[in-house]
Amino acid sequence: MLKELDLTRKLSKEEYAPIAEALGPRLTMLQQRIIQAKIPVIILFEGPSAAGKGAMVNSLILHFDARGFTVFNTQDPEPGDLRVPWLARFAKQMPAYGRMAIYDRSWYGGWFRRFGRKTGKGKYTRYFEEINTFERQLTDDGYLILKYFLYIDKKEQKKRFEKLKRVKSTSWRVNKADFKNLKFHKELMEISDQMLEATNTSYAPWRPVAATDKRYVRATVFSSIADELESALKIREEKPAQETDFAPQVKPCFHLLPHKTIEELDLTKAIAEEEYKERLKSLQKKLFKLQNKLYLAKIPVIIAYEGNDAAGKGGNIRRVASALDARGYSVTPIAAPTPDELSHQYLWRFWKALPRTGHFGIFDRTWYGRVLVERVEGFTPVSRINQAYNEINEFEYMLHRWGAVIFKFWLAIDQDEQLRRFEERENTPEKQWKITQEDWRNRDKWNLYTAAVNDMFRYTNTDFAPWTAIEAGDKRYARIKTLETMITAIEKRL
Amino acid sequence: MLKELDLTRKLSKEEYAPIAEALGPRLTMLQQRIIQAKIPVIILFEGPSAAGKGAMVNSLILHFDARGFTVFNTQDPEPGDLRVPWLARFAKQMPAYGRMAIYDRSWYGGWFRRFGRKTGKGKYTRYFEEINTFERQLTDDGYLILKYFLYIDKKEQKKRFEKLKRVKSTSWRVNKADFKNLKFHKELMEISDQMLEATNTSYAPWRPVAATDKRYVRATVFSSIADELESALKIREEKPAQETDFAPQVKPCFHLLPHKTIEELDLTKAIAEEEYKERLKSLQKKLFKLQNKLYLAKIPVIIAYEGNDAAGKGGNIRRVASALDARGYSVTPIAAPTPDELSHQYLWRFWKALPRTGHFGIFDRTWYGRVLVERVEGFTPVSRINQAYNEINEFEYMLHRWGAVIFKFWLAIDQDEQLRRFEERENTPEKQWKITQEDWRNRDKWNLYTAAVNDMFRYTNTDFAPWTAIEAGDKRYARIKTLETMITAIEKRL
Repeated sequence: MLKELDLTRKLSKEEYAPIAEALGPRLTMLQQRIIQAKIPVIILFEGPSAAGKGAMVNSLILHFDARGFTVFNTQDPEPGDLRVPWLARFAKQMPAYGRMAIYDRSWYGGWFRRFGRKTGKGKYTRYFEEINTFERQLTDDGYLILKYFLYIDKKEQKKRFEKLKRVKSTSWRVNKADFKNLKFHKELMEISDQMLEATNTSYAPWRPVAATDKRYVRATVFSSIADELESALKIREEKPAQETDFAPQVKPCFHLLPHKTIEELDLTKAIAEEEYKERLKSLQKKLFKLQNKLYLAKIPVIIAYEGNDAAGKGGNIRRVASALDARGYSVTPIAAPTPDELSHQYLWRFWKALPRTGHFGIFDRTWYGRVLVERVEGFTPVSRINQAYNEINEFEYMLHRWGAVIFKFWLAIDQDEQLRRFEERENTPEKQWKITQEDWRNRDKWNLYTAAVNDMFRYTNTDFAPWTAIEAGDKRYARIKTLETMITAIEKRL
Repeated sequence: MLKELDLTRKLSKEEYAPIAEALGPRLTMLQQRIIQAKIPVIILFEGPSAAGKGAMVNSLILHFDARGFTVFNTQDPEPGDLRVPWLARFAKQMPAYGRMAIYDRSWYGGWFRRFGRKTGKGKYTRYFEEINTFERQLTDDGYLILKYFLYIDKKEQKKRFEKLKRVKSTSWRVNKADFKNLKFHKELMEISDQMLEATNTSYAPWRPVAATDKRYVRATVFSSIADELESALKIREEKPAQETDFAPQVKPCFHLLPHKTIEELDLTKAIAEEEYKERLKSLQKKLFKLQNKLYLAKIPVIIAYEGNDAAGKGGNIRRVASALDARGYSVTPIAAPTPDELSHQYLWRFWKALPRTGHFGIFDRTWYGRVLVERVEGFTPVSRINQAYNEINEFEYMLHRWGAVIFKFWLAIDQDEQLRRFEERENTPEKQWKITQEDWRNRDKWNLYTAAVNDMFRYTNTDFAPWTAIEAGDKRYARIKTLETMITAIEKRL
C-alpha cells in the first residue's frame, strides 16, 4: 500500500489557509454532534519514527472539546500488561459511547517496536487475526475506527532526526538506535505493508498518508476525519430496520460440539450426606494442590457460572473458593450493568476483570447475560444478540490461546425445586436478602429462559471452552460434579 | 505494642467449635446489613512472613457474599505505581459505599519489604504522616478501617518456614532470604513496633494479635470484626445531629496566605489584539520548551481550573494545551459525578486522574466542586464541607511533597459580562451547546457562589498551592496572565 503513495505531495501556505480555516470549525461542530448521537470514535495514528504522529495528535485535538476525548500515547507494556491477554490493555481503554479515543501508536505499536529484531512472519498471524476480530466486534457495536498510517521516506526521516538532534530541547528524542534503524528503512516499509494488508478490513480500513509535507498531511487527515464523522452521523440518522422477535440466526465460525438440552438432563441425581463430606474434603485438597502447580506454571483459569435462580451458584462457588488460596483467585459478581458499563460494548467489563496468569478468575454470572437476560427481556436488539454468540466464542478463543483453562458451568434445577427454594428463602431470616421480586418475575418467563439456554449450548459449546451442565437438584451432587470436572480438566492440562 | 502480646494463647478444639459456629452466621448477617447501610469497610492484615495473613483472609471471606468484597494481595509496586504519588495506587482501590476491601498486606507493606535493608527512621515519618491523613480522611467520610497485626515469635516463624519447605507444593513459598531474615527477628519486632505506634490512631487503631495458635487468632480476629461491624451499624442508626445552614468552621492546619476577595479584583484589565497575538506566541513557545525540561526532570505539573460559568476556561485551557506536546499532558473534564463516583469519597476520582511524573495534568473544574457547587446547592452535609477545606489542603500537600508544581486558577468575570456571554452563546449556532438551563439557574445564586469562592480563597490559599485570581473580563488578558503565571513559577522551580 505504501508504494502507491506520492511522497512529493505538498500544499503551499496559500493553498492550505482556506482549507484549514474551514476544517477547524467543521471538526468542532462534528464532535458535538458525535457526542449527542453517542457514537464512539477511535482515531489512531501509526507510522515510522518522526513521521509526525505526535504533532498530528497535537493539532487535531485543538479543534475538539477536551471533555469529549482522551489521548493515548502507547508505550511498551508494563509487567502487569504481560500477565493478561495482550489486547486487554487496549480493550479496557475503549471509549464510552459518544467519546473519542485518539492514539499516538496503538495496538499496532508492538509491530514497530519489534522492527529490526528477527521476527518470523508467521508469529504475527495470530496478532493480526486478533486485531481484526477486536476491531470487527467494536464496529459491529457501533464504534467508528479511523486508522491513519503516516509515511515518510528514508531521506525525510534522516533529515528530521538530524533536526531533532540539533535542537537542544529535543535532542533526547532521538538516539543512536534511531539512526541505526535508518539502514532498515526499506525493510520497515515491507513489514509495514504486510501489516497494513493483513489488517486492512472493510470495517476498519487503513488510510496511508504521505507525511512529507506538514500542511498536506494535516489537510488530508483532517478532511478525511471530518468526512468519516459526517457519514457515520448520516448512517445513524437513517431509520434502523424494524426488529422482529428473537429467532437465532447464527453463522458458526468455530467447530461446535453437540450438547444435551435442558430437557435431557437428569435432575434427580443426588449424593448422600456422608459420602458428600468425604469426597468434598478430598477434592478440595486436590484442587488446592493443583492451584499451586497452575500458579507455578503461570496458567490462568477462567470459571464461568450461570444457572437458574436459586440453583445454588453461591454455595457452589464457595466450595470451590474455599479450596483455593485467596491470593490466587478473584470472584467477580455480575449484577445489572452500571451506567458506565451500559455505555461501553458489553464485553468491556469482562476484559477489565480478567485474572492474571497463574490466577483463577471466577465469574458469578458472565458475558452470557447478553444471550440470556438481554435476549429474554428484550434489552438488546435481536441483531446484536445474534452477533453475540460468535463474539463470545471469539472472546473465549482469545482466552484459550492466551493459555487459559476455561470452565463454563450451567447449574440446572426444575421449576418445582426452584419454587421450594424460593419459599424456603422467604421463610429463613438469614436467607431473605437472597430473594427479590425480580426472581419471581424471572420465574414467569421460565420457558423463554429455557429456550435461550438451549440456544446458548447449541451455539457456544466449543471444544476449547465447552459447557458443563451441572444437575443441581441436589446441591451436594452439583458441588462434587463441579469440583471433579475442574480437577479432571486441570490434571489433563498439567 | 507487640511485647504485651501473650504468644502462648491457645484454644482447644472443644473451646473453639462453639465460638466458630456462632461467628460464621453472625459475620454473614452483618455483611448484609453493612451492604444495606452502605458502610464502606477496609479490613487489613499485616505481620511478618508466615504469620498466617493469607490463611486468615481465606477463612474470613468464606463467611461473606463474594458480591460484597474484594481481596487485595499487595505486592511490590509496578513501574507505573512509582510515577504517581505512592498512596495513589491504594486510594484508587478504596471500596465503594457498602463494599469491603480486604488486604493481605496493604499500604504498610513497604515497611516490611524494606526490613533488613538500611533505612533511616526519619525517612518514614512522612509516610506515616500521609498514612494517618489518608486513613483519617476516609474515616471522616464514613469508612470503617480495621487493622490487624498478626504476630509470631522467631521460634514459631522458623518452624513454619521449615514446614513450608518440607512440603513439595509449598516449598517455593520460602527462600534463602526468609531463613536469613530470621536472624533479624528482634529488629523486625522493634521496627514493627515503631510503625504500629506511629500509625495507631483513634480513628484507625491497630489490633495486634498473637498468631501462634490458628484457632485462637481466628476466634479473636473474627469476633473483633463482628463487634466492630456491629458498633458501626449502631452508630449509623443513631439520628445525626440536625444540620444547619452553611457557616464555615475551619481549623486551618496549614499556613494560609492572605488573598484578595472577588470584590477586590479589577475586572477591567485588558490587552489589545496586536499585543496579545505577539505575546501569546512567544509565551507558548516558552512553555513548550519548559515542558521538555520538566519531562526530563520528571517533575509533574497540576493545573486546576475553576471560575464563573462562561469565564472562558475552555478557551484558556486550549491556549495552554496547544503549547504542549499531546504526549505529555491530559485534560480531565469534571462533570457531575457518576453513580460510581458518588459512592466513593469525593477525592477518589481525582486520585485516579493524577498525571505521571514529568506530565501535565489539567483539570477543567476540580476537587473544589466540594466547597463550591456542593456547598451552594446543599448536596453535601455542612460538616463534611467544613472538613473538606482541610482535606483538600492535605491532598494538595501530598501532591506538593510528591514533587508537583501546582497551579490553581480562578477565572473571574462580573454579572454583566456573564449575561453578555450567555446571550452571545444562545445566538451563535456553534456555541449553543455550551449553554444550558443549569447555567441560568447558577446565575440566580451569584451571591452564594461569590461567598463560597471567597471562603475557598481564605481557607485553601497555601504557600505550596496558592490561588491565582485571573481577571477574565477580557479573555486575551486572562490567557496571557495564565501563561505568564505558569512560566514564572516553572522557571523558578527548574
